[in-house]
Amino acid sequence: MYILVINAGSSSLKYQLFDMPLDKPLCTGLIERIGTNEAFIRHKILTVDPTQTIERQEAIADHSAGLQQMVELLSDAEIGLIHSADDIKAVGHRVVHGGERFANATLITPAVKETIKDLFPLAPLHNPINYQCIEIAEKTFPNARQIAVFDTAFHQTMPEYAFRYAIPESLYTDEGIRVYGFHGTSHKYVSEKAAAWLGKPDAKLISIHLGNGCSITAVQNGKSLDTSMGFSPLAGLVMGTRSGDIDPSVIFHLIAKGYSADAVNNLLNKQSGMQGLTGLNDMRDIRKALEAGNQAAALALDIYAYRIQKYIGSYAAVLNGLDALIFTAGVGENDSAMREQICANLDFLAVYLDSDKNRVATGDVREVNRSDSAVKILVIPTNEELEIAQQSFDLLETA
Amino acid sequence: MYILVINAGSSSLKYQLFDMPLDKPLCTGLIERIGTNEAFIRHKILTVDPTQTIERQEAIADHSAGLQQMVELLSDAEIGLIHSADDIKAVGHRVVHGGERFANATLITPAVKETIKDLFPLAPLHNPINYQCIEIAEKTFPNARQIAVFDTAFHQTMPEYAFRYAIPESLYTDEGIRVYGFHGTSHKYVSEKAAAWLGKPDAKLISIHLGNGCSITAVQNGKSLDTSMGFSPLAGLVMGTRSGDIDPSVIFHLIAKGYSADAVNNLLNKQSGMQGLTGLNDMRDIRKALEAGNQAAALALDIYAYRIQKYIGSYAAVLNGLDALIFTAGVGENDSAMREQICANLDFLAVYLDSDKNRVATGDVREVNRSDSAVKILVIPTNEELEIAQQSFDLLETA
Repeated sequence: MYILVINAGSSSLKYQLFDMPLDKPLCTGLIERIGTNEAFIRHKILTVDPTQTIERQEAIADHSAGLQQMVELLSDAEIGLIHSADDIKAVGHRVVHGGERFANATLITPAVKETIKDLFPLAPLHNPINYQCIEIAEKTFPNARQIAVFDTAFHQTMPEYAFRYAIPESLYTDEGIRVYGFHGTSHKYVSEKAAAWLGKPDAKLISIHLGNGCSITAVQNGKSLDTSMGFSPLAGLVMGTRSGDIDPSVIFHLIAKGYSADAVNNLLNKQSGMQGLTGLNDMRDIRKALEAGNQAAALALDIYAYRIQKYIGSYAAVLNGLDALIFTAGVGENDSAMREQICANLDFLAVYLDSDKNRVATGDVREVNRSDSAVKILVIPTNEELEIAQQSFDLLETA
Repeated sequence: MYILVINAGSSSLKYQLFDMPLDKPLCTGLIERIGTNEAFIRHKILTVDPTQTIERQEAIADHSAGLQQMVELLSDAEIGLIHSADDIKAVGHRVVHGGERFANATLITPAVKETIKDLFPLAPLHNPINYQCIEIAEKTFPNARQIAVFDTAFHQTMPEYAFRYAIPESLYTDEGIRVYGFHGTSHKYVSEKAAAWLGKPDAKLISIHLGNGCSITAVQNGKSLDTSMGFSPLAGLVMGTRSGDIDPSVIFHLIAKGYSADAVNNLLNKQSGMQGLTGLNDMRDIRKALEAGNQAAALALDIYAYRIQKYIGSYAAVLNGLDALIFTAGVGENDSAMREQICANLDFLAVYLDSDKNRVATGDVREVNRSDSAVKILVIPTNEELEIAQQSFDLLETA
């Protein structure tokens, strides 16, 4: 069964076609700078050897036009993988915010679409685009089932004392202000792989997703118990351009100094994090600056690692113990020096990294701890698209 | 040597007279509702047996009038402890914000006063009152040395990677936006007592100050390494009326909903915390509500304890180990059920509370852990006034 996965950002569109239940990716694509005359398409066909990549630069007015391009590439007479849109049996959509209503992958009905719309105020940058892509996909693939997989769903198992803020109760009951958490699809995918690797379904796991956005989640028995992102994806760890945790008074202080609330919001989301500390937001560039003796880069890396260490301690308390740390996403999978810095000085948890293994490890699950480490240290490449395809397939099978 | 300690709030004034270096308190007083016609004075003389308490209700226009009342009581012909203001050799002032400039008790000079004034924007509710009381005390006790003991001073040992936020560097260098931390006098006092009790100057300590304001500090070698309050006293733990940590996006969301920034600031500082969750801010009232079956009280206590547990784990990571937990201030010293809840499920740190000892312990340093607990659990009554008197005395001796 062919399942297409769509992951849309404000000006980008990632897609991947899977043959399920084989978990076999047939092609993968990325469209960037949608809405400009210089949009960029990279379409990679994985069924031929060597893999074939088509790259194009052209005007793409909107997500609808982007999806149209994708369909043309998928059904192209020469390089196509399908004969018509009807070959796609299901479209799995990554939807950022599912609020409290969706704890699992969900078949999209008019009522589900209304709920996604109701949640626009909680995810103003993401849910409207996700909604729009669902509507386009319904027209483009009229005979496919449309399925939503929510970034918040995995965290719906958090206990109430963990997801509530200490603010007036009515702000929760009437306005929905609580911890939702994000990156749920990724945390679920890697924590299931880790539990399987350990052969221990009730393993106490801390999943550390370090991409451009960063979050960390305490997981046991396949359930998220706590996570660092909160009401929005701004809270928690230091990120590429986001501040993560900060005293809320800083906002009032800046507003009193003459900043508008929008300016501070923009500052904390787009000009902070590693960008704010170093002027750079890509960890590889920051490492180069460090090697060139840049002091700000050294400090920023220290702050980044220190914040993660504090969350590891915190979530060890949440779990009352720890079986494994999991590193995933761009920085987590590729920055061995950052993993080494994070795992240093955690003797109290008997976390001991093996520096050699850490530098050279490859594979689906890479174990980089010393043999005498009480806590396994695992590097597990995340695959949100595959997770969405699997959840979509499972939903159709059991529905 | 008689040293008077003054601790002024926006509408209150606490004072205590000590005979130093005997650490002997001679009298203690509290003036509340300053600025009203129904101000209240409670003046307790400790040198007679039984102790004698004078209580009065009368109009007190301002802090100057309040200090005048205090001097009259101190030098009263019948119940007075001094003959004239000149008997007071030093006045120790609690000053909330010392910024980055004061890491220790400081003799007040015109330059120091200017600096306290410069810090008004960082502590708008407290430093102006502290400044005013210094000026009044200079006039009232013209021959006494005036000494400032800052609430932030103890935390000036925090490493930069711990006190910096992940925001543009210029907001730190130009605007002073960083973690300062508060309750420093209390954390210093109890952590020194704990290190002495343990006979281990380099003990790894977590000091938990739970009053109406709450904060938690990681201490080693007499130095604060990290603390939960930040740029302001709003961040960190759940407090009587303050939210503690919260996703900063909640503020922007409420402003977008039509709240003013001032209204949200007021909401998070005065209508949140235990007050926001239960409608009550006194822990004793919340315990009564719990006993009456109030669900909101049960949840609020869970959130309060859970947040502290997470910080304990976090600071165990900061310290890379843990020798003792210290509970202090109103709730920390008196709410044995809360101590029990906080210390539960921390087996991974080998923290084991002794329920019987925890309920009945009295004394200056009360050890309430089981004998097989790797971590000592200490209840130590805080005494910020005595700490201020001692620091003032030491400063004069070594100056």
